[in-house]
Amino acid sequence: MPTESTTVGIVGAGPAGLMLSHLLALSGIESVAIDIRSREEIEHTNRAGILEQDSVRLLTDTGVDGRVLTDGYEHHGIELRFGGEGHRINFQELVGASVWLYPQTDVFIDLANARARDGGDVRFGVTNPAVREVTGRPVMSFTDADGVDHEVRCDYLVGSDGSRSMCRHELPESLRRQYYKEYPFAWFGIMVEAPPSAPELIYARHDRGFALISQRTDVLQRMYFQCSPTEDIDAWSDDRIWEELQTRVEGGGFRLIEGPITEKTVLPFRSFVCEPMRHGNLFLAGDAAHTVPPTGAKGLNLALQDVKVLHELLDAAINLGKTELLDTYSTRALERVWKAQQFSYRMTTMLHSLPDETPFDARRQLGQLNDIVSSRFGSAHIAECYTGWPTT
Amino acid sequence: MPTESTTVGIVGAGPAGLMLSHLLALSGIESVAIDIRSREEIEHTNRAGILEQDSVRLLTDTGVDGRVLTDGYEHHGIELRFGGEGHRINFQELVGASVWLYPQTDVFIDLANARARDGGDVRFGVTNPAVREVTGRPVMSFTDADGVDHEVRCDYLVGSDGSRSMCRHELPESLRRQYYKEYPFAWFGIMVEAPPSAPELIYARHDRGFALISQRTDVLQRMYFQCSPTEDIDAWSDDRIWEELQTRVEGGGFRLIEGPITEKTVLPFRSFVCEPMRHGNLFLAGDAAHTVPPTGAKGLNLALQDVKVLHELLDAAINLGKTELLDTYSTRALERVWKAQQFSYRMTTMLHSLPDETPFDARRQLGQLNDIVSSRFGSAHIAECYTGWPTT
Repeated sequence: MPTESTTVGIVGAGPAGLMLSHLLALSGIESVAIDIRSREEIEHTNRAGILEQDSVRLLTDTGVDGRVLTDGYEHHGIELRFGGEGHRINFQELVGASVWLYPQTDVFIDLANARARDGGDVRFGVTNPAVREVTGRPVMSFTDADGVDHEVRCDYLVGSDGSRSMCRHELPESLRRQYYKEYPFAWFGIMVEAPPSAPELIYARHDRGFALISQRTDVLQRMYFQCSPTEDIDAWSDDRIWEELQTRVEGGGFRLIEGPITEKTVLPFRSFVCEPMRHGNLFLAGDAAHTVPPTGAKGLNLALQDVKVLHELLDAAINLGKTELLDTYSTRALERVWKAQQFSYRMTTMLHSLPDETPFDARRQLGQLNDIVSSRFGSAHIAECYTGWPTT
Repeated sequence: MPTESTTVGIVGAGPAGLMLSHLLALSGIESVAIDIRSREEIEHTNRAGILEQDSVRLLTDTGVDGRVLTDGYEHHGIELRFGGEGHRINFQELVGASVWLYPQTDVFIDLANARARDGGDVRFGVTNPAVREVTGRPVMSFTDADGVDHEVRCDYLVGSDGSRSMCRHELPESLRRQYYKEYPFAWFGIMVEAPPSAPELIYARHDRGFALISQRTDVLQRMYFQCSPTEDIDAWSDDRIWEELQTRVEGGGFRLIEGPITEKTVLPFRSFVCEPMRHGNLFLAGDAAHTVPPTGAKGLNLALQDVKVLHELLDAAINLGKTELLDTYSTRALERVWKAQQFSYRMTTMLHSLPDETPFDARRQLGQLNDIVSSRFGSAHIAECYTGWPTT
């Protein structure tokens, strides 16, 4: 088998891997990206999609696609709902920023199209992926969709291969620090055929637990409610789901618009960080290095920020010879990762009820929400975190 | 025994009770305040003393005493210290407010002097205090310091009798909701004969636990470090204390100025709220209704805010006949109480280490502190809470 070569090998062609491949191409840097999933498989994975302003810019300003601006929905705020009342956090007024509702699937489609359009080397549906020699000149091997074996030698290797990352295990255990947090709950997610019940996301805190009213399109909605991690989907009839959701968001005459439920899933809920995010010439990006609970809508945005920073550093290393800058990757990326972990944890704990929660905790939680919505600084801090910190 | 009468009976002549008595007198409303402690005993109880701007105004603008402005120390900020670095939260710049370092003992002395000066009826050192008929025309009975029995009938009764409040128990159990939170740690507090180590309070987070560097005067300092609730004071030699404190605040060449330790105490640490704060003609104020952990420096300030609101409502009821306004007391006072509980909890959890803390929690805590000091909104929100919310 002849050994091919490239400058950057990318394991995992989800949004992070494809965005990196796209950015590298703009800097004239060659890359090969592989993924064990087929393109169709990734396109049919339903994932949440709230994009920070910076993530939207990354799609539009670098020439990926402007579709997010026409097909996505710009949201100027969110609603925090508790004690039977809704309280809007107005992002535009507080911090001059917006977020965009645009499903991760569409981000992937735009990136895959852009890579195909620009002649990017992306191999979907590979098997037997493996990496080796990550501290020297790394090798990425795989069998392509046509059954042909490949070995690609690269200068740098990027593991953007998701939460079950293979690349992560190339960090020696003696150097790898892994931080986990398990939560005693999960999210019950449904897809509903109905018009939107509200123009923006509603994050609701109720004594019965958290609920999130999200949107997808004019005729399709996404809603979630806190449940047990071992919740039995079959125990939830449509009627029971609607009763639960309506109860958790009730107050001030607000009612959800009901419709046929076309999907029911229980989503896992956890926090994870792997440090460092670099070992030798291997760099981790996105879910391969960290998982956040969905409450802060940070997962995809963090992944895109990782590759934005990584592209900048690889560009400086490859095009300007400033390889020493690569040493800063882990620290720079992790600073944002831990802010996002904290924000996701904060949004989670201020809105969810815990199985072992005391009456004190429940009342304090209301005090916390009340303090945030009645304080311009408290609200602006939430707005700043939600819409995204500047790249560091 | 002849029954005396007054308009407002006040059980507990600490800062809350005396401030209420003082404010009522300004509105021409008669009161009798009693306390089982002697004046000397209260004067010799060492308590923390950070006064919010509004608390200072209450002392100076109502003619209690201006001594806080000459003998107290105005602080324009605090320092948050973590990861070996100090980060100043500049209250003046962020929210245009200050706090004052002025011990609770001195607040008490000023109030007791003012009450004596103005002919207020305050009876220290009573025994056998009791109250009855709180839903009708309450009666407060006691034996005075000379051994004479008294019975005072009043229109309104105020329980400002501290955390072990007798008055609280007049709320029928069926109506009373009590909220507790115990923490798995306490504070080891010392008094030191030394000049100040820093111009403002330092709140330090260290892997070994929290430390607070406070001040008292130019020659006397107050310092604390997180310890076990069952900590054995005798196990802590002066040398061991200094080593522990120096370690917890180390970084950037900062060193505490050491000196003779004149007091060592382990301070309890808990949160408590009793709801409602009114039953019939009985009103609870200050520690009788709520206890906060000391981390947010809110205890005394909350007590003064309670009586500020209560005075306003009693004035309207007694002088203008608007008795229906008294119904709002509990709700108005509790709104601030729960904000203060949340703030104290937040300051506590972001700076203390928990016995069962995971490595994730420790790193997230650093992410939280980093987010706060690097965000103007995050810092301003802390500044706003610390310097005090407007009276509601």
